[in-house]
Amino acid sequence: MADTRRVVLDVLKPHDPPLLRFTDGIAEAESVTGATGTLVELDEDVQNVSVTVEGENLDFQAVEAAIEDLGGTVHSVDQVASGDHVVERRRTPQDR
Amino acid sequence: MADTRRVVLDVLKPHDPPLLRFTDGIAEAESVTGATGTLVELDEDVQNVSVTVEGENLDFQAVEAAIEDLGGTVHSVDQVASGDHVVERRRTPQDR
Amino acid sequence: MADTRRVVLDVLKPHDPPLLRFTDGIAEAESVTGATGTLVELDEDVQNVSVTVEGENLDFQAVEAAIEDLGGTVHSVDQVASGDHVVERRRTPQDR
Amino acid sequence: MADTRRVVLDVLKPHDPPLLRFTDGIAEAESVTGATGTLVELDEDVQNVSVTVEGENLDFQAVEAAIEDLGGTVHSVDQVASGDHVVERRRTPQDR
Amino acid sequence: MADTRRVVLDVLKPHDPPLLRFTDGIAEAESVTGATGTLVELDEDVQNVSVTVEGENLDFQAVEAAIEDLGGTVHSVDQVASGDHVVERRRTPQDR
Amino acid sequence: MADTRRVVLDVLKPHDPPLLRFTDGIAEAESVTGATGTLVELDEDVQNVSVTVEGENLDFQAVEAAIEDLGGTVHSVDQVASGDHVVERRRTPQDR
Amino acid sequence: MADTRRVVLDVLKPHDPPLLRFTDGIAEAESVTGATGTLVELDEDVQNVSVTVEGENLDFQAVEAAIEDLGGTVHSVDQVASGDHVVERRRTPQDR
Repeated sequence: MADTRRVVLDVLKPHDPPLLRFTDGIAEAESVTGATGTLVELDEDVQNVSVTVEGENLDFQAVEAAIEDLGGTVHSVDQVASGDHVVERRRTPQDR
Repeated sequence: MADTRRVVLDVLKPHDPPLLRFTDGIAEAESVTGATGTLVELDEDVQNVSVTVEGENLDFQAVEAAIEDLGGTVHSVDQVASGDHVVERRRTPQDR
Repeated sequence: MADTRRVVLDVLKPHDPPLLRFTDGIAEAESVTGATGTLVELDEDVQNVSVTVEGENLDFQAVEAAIEDLGGTVHSVDQVASGDHVVERRRTPQDR
Repeated sequence: MADTRRVVLDVLKPHDPPLLRFTDGIAEAESVTGATGTLVELDEDVQNVSVTVEGENLDFQAVEAAIEDLGGTVHSVDQVASGDHVVERRRTPQDR
Repeated sequence: MADTRRVVLDVLKPHDPPLLRFTDGIAEAESVTGATGTLVELDEDVQNVSVTVEGENLDFQAVEAAIEDLGGTVHSVDQVASGDHVVERRRTPQDR
Repeated sequence: MADTRRVVLDVLKPHDPPLLRFTDGIAEAESVTGATGTLVELDEDVQNVSVTVEGENLDFQAVEAAIEDLGGTVHSVDQVASGDHVVERRRTPQDR
Repeated sequence: MADTRRVVLDVLKPHDPPLLRFTDGIAEAESVTGATGTLVELDEDVQNVSVTVEGENLDFQAVEAAIEDLGGTVHSVDQVASGDHVVERRRTPQDR
């Protein structure tokens, strides 16, 4: 299969562990070279976090396992970039 | 014919295979150097995904076959860049 | 005359040939180094496509002939860049 | 006098000659290194075109003569950049 | 654990020490290479400040301790970038 | 005193001399390396022009004298950049 | 303490000295390498000016003294960047 180079995830997590430990834990997962977690929304019990993960050849199962080990769940995979290089998404008039 | 270097596709796909495997599969197609799949909309049965594909000389039939083998259909081809280099689309006042 | 280096065209085309073959055909025209076709609007019979064409010294008649051979018509020429280099359009407060 | 390096013109022209020949003609004028003509508005008789012209030391009279030889008229000069280098306009809160 | 490289914090602080001394104090904390404090809102007693902190391997406890020593409290951690390099957050249509 | 490197001026001028000669005249003033004049508004008698002037060490009195010699008046000085280098203005949430 | 590298100030000043002399005077202050003053609002008696000041190791007291010597007052300090390098503020969804 082609190399997965970037994924953007919509993640739900409890308040604990906090975002810093949570993001560090994802960045620590096998095949990940960097991860950024961004708080999007929160209520009393749960945080909605947007996570962007990069690597040369991402092992998504390792990423997902790391997220679940940290108490989170991947609610949806919103973007995936695969191949020899990262292709940026192009918008067109049909997007609106 | 001139080389096709980038295409932006509006694709419908079932929930399975998920976006990651779907995008990897497109990136794996003959002539493709990179692909990015972006979730645009989803309902119970189907996902609407915007796919940007790049290559030096894209074989669109191979791309379309890969999408169909993965259970998807190309709903429309929204942008195509062809030639010796990629030309970026220019907007003018006539666009609005 | 000065060299024509970029033109932005508002083109009407039938659904067939599809955008990919249509854009490749324009990129193949004499004097063209690259072309990008973008789907703007479509109804049952016709597609409205914005086409940006670049070359060192574009032969517009060859471009227009290619479009017509492919069943399309140039509805309007919306921007032209000519000379020794491409000048980007500058907007001013008078534009609004 | 200082060198004029860029002018942005609001031009009215008849439909004929078309924008391509019109822009090429301006780019051909003495002292011009590049010109871009952009269709802004059109009615039955006339086209309103925004023209950006660049050169090391523009001879505006040659530019205006070229426009008039092509049947156009300079409706207004909307921006001028002069001197040893092109200064980009800076916007401030006083602009609104 | 992976290296924490950037954190964006929502901080509440009293009016004293003022923003300059407050930001300098954070930048002085162990492991921090740079910090920027931006006043977002203020009322009679408290200032709401957005703080962006960067380092090769941030010691968040040292950052938080510095903030608390300066009389502030971290109201929330809004973004964290971890790993071998900083990954920029990518937005998708699912964000809206 | 520190070197003045860029000023943005709100200028009123009669229709004559036209913007091109007016901007060239400012660019010609002692200490000016480049000037850009942009038409903002006009009525029957007067034009409101935004002028951005750059130099290594601007002599504002020479700039103002040039503007007045050309029949214009400096209505307000809207931005000034001084020092060893040009500092770009930073916006913050307090600006709105 | 860490080096202060950039501050954004909301300043009130009388009409005299004018913005040019005012900004030059700030840029002349000890430790300042550049300053930009931008007119934000004005009424009959006072001008509200946004001032961005940069230096390798800013002496804020010298900056404030310069502003006060020129008749102005620092109404608020809206942004401060400190450390070995300037960190740009990052916005997150929590900002809105």
